[in-house]
Amino acid sequence: MPKRTDTRARMLATAGDLLHRQGYTATGLNQILEESRAPKGSLYFHFPGGKEELMSLALERASESLTEMIERVLAAAPSPEHALDAITAYFAGQLESSQFTKGCPLATVALEQAATSDALHRVCSATYGRWQAAIAARLERDGHARERAESLAGFLLATIEGALLLCRAHRSTEPLLRASAELRRTLKGTP
Amino acid sequence: MPKRTDTRARMLATAGDLLHRQGYTATGLNQILEESRAPKGSLYFHFPGGKEELMSLALERASESLTEMIERVLAAAPSPEHALDAITAYFAGQLESSQFTKGCPLATVALEQAATSDALHRVCSATYGRWQAAIAARLERDGHARERAESLAGFLLATIEGALLLCRAHRSTEPLLRASAELRRTLKGTP
Repeated sequence: MPKRTDTRARMLATAGDLLHRQGYTATGLNQILEESRAPKGSLYFHFPGGKEELMSLALERASESLTEMIERVLAAAPSPEHALDAITAYFAGQLESSQFTKGCPLATVALEQAATSDALHRVCSATYGRWQAAIAARLERDGHARERAESLAGFLLATIEGALLLCRAHRSTEPLLRASAELRRTLKGTP
Repeated sequence: MPKRTDTRARMLATAGDLLHRQGYTATGLNQILEESRAPKGSLYFHFPGGKEELMSLALERASESLTEMIERVLAAAPSPEHALDAITAYFAGQLESSQFTKGCPLATVALEQAATSDALHRVCSATYGRWQAAIAARLERDGHARERAESLAGFLLATIEGALLLCRAHRSTEPLLRASAELRRTLKGTP
């Protein structure tokens, strides 16, 4: 049944992109159906749990490729500072090419929904947890004690997330570039 | 005309609280009118620019009291670290008492609207700018050169904003408490 699978995959991809750009609340089911060219009846056929199920899966799917990129960069970079530079460049490019509509793909949904939707809270919390664990693993590999690596990783993640938010608020990549430069100092200063 | 003024002030206060908890998109005009017990016709009477005008003013008003608190704490605290502790405690208390529905009052709106609404972009950008300037002024007073104080202030603000976001995603104050401890180290290590 290749067609059914195609429709489902298209709906997830479209929903993921819309969640990234405009968040959960502004993303209506009709918009997803239209933009993914899916027939009206297909929502509950593919996603019996309705909007929350479709959105949770779409968010999970959308963040999966970013998680893989982050893990790959952290594993392959010659140093944590190089990984930080690569991740900074990635997000700065995405912010600019999207006219500041695309920062972190989870952030808007997390702020809109994590306090009230258990399903979306679980996706956001698990994904941020994986990113933090990937950073911590790299820092540990470079000689930081486990507890120190964990704490520093949470700090790096918070700073990058906040900087991405400020970039969108100011419509400028400056907050990210400056925060990244400060994080480089932190990484150098804490062996 | 005390009654007119009351209605307008109530609408702004209600809108500000709703924006803080649920963001821009989820906050409908009917909900604002109902919760502020304002008559149906009052929206365009008090806010000829409609939803965007009401919301921009409400956001400005709501962030004003937080800005004053931040400026007061930064000016009065015996050290930047003390100010950081006070601000951390304030936000941790608010997150917990609101069941993680209330973090930064601007953040959800910034992510939802700053890329597309010029009015909301201006409020968010100006307010974050004031917070950063207040932090920078305090750091300069404590001996940091101006450029260094500016950069550190942006870094502190980004880290706190990101930590507040992660707290909401995880439904835990841990990211804020740990990020704040890391910022303390940063402040101590960079005289």
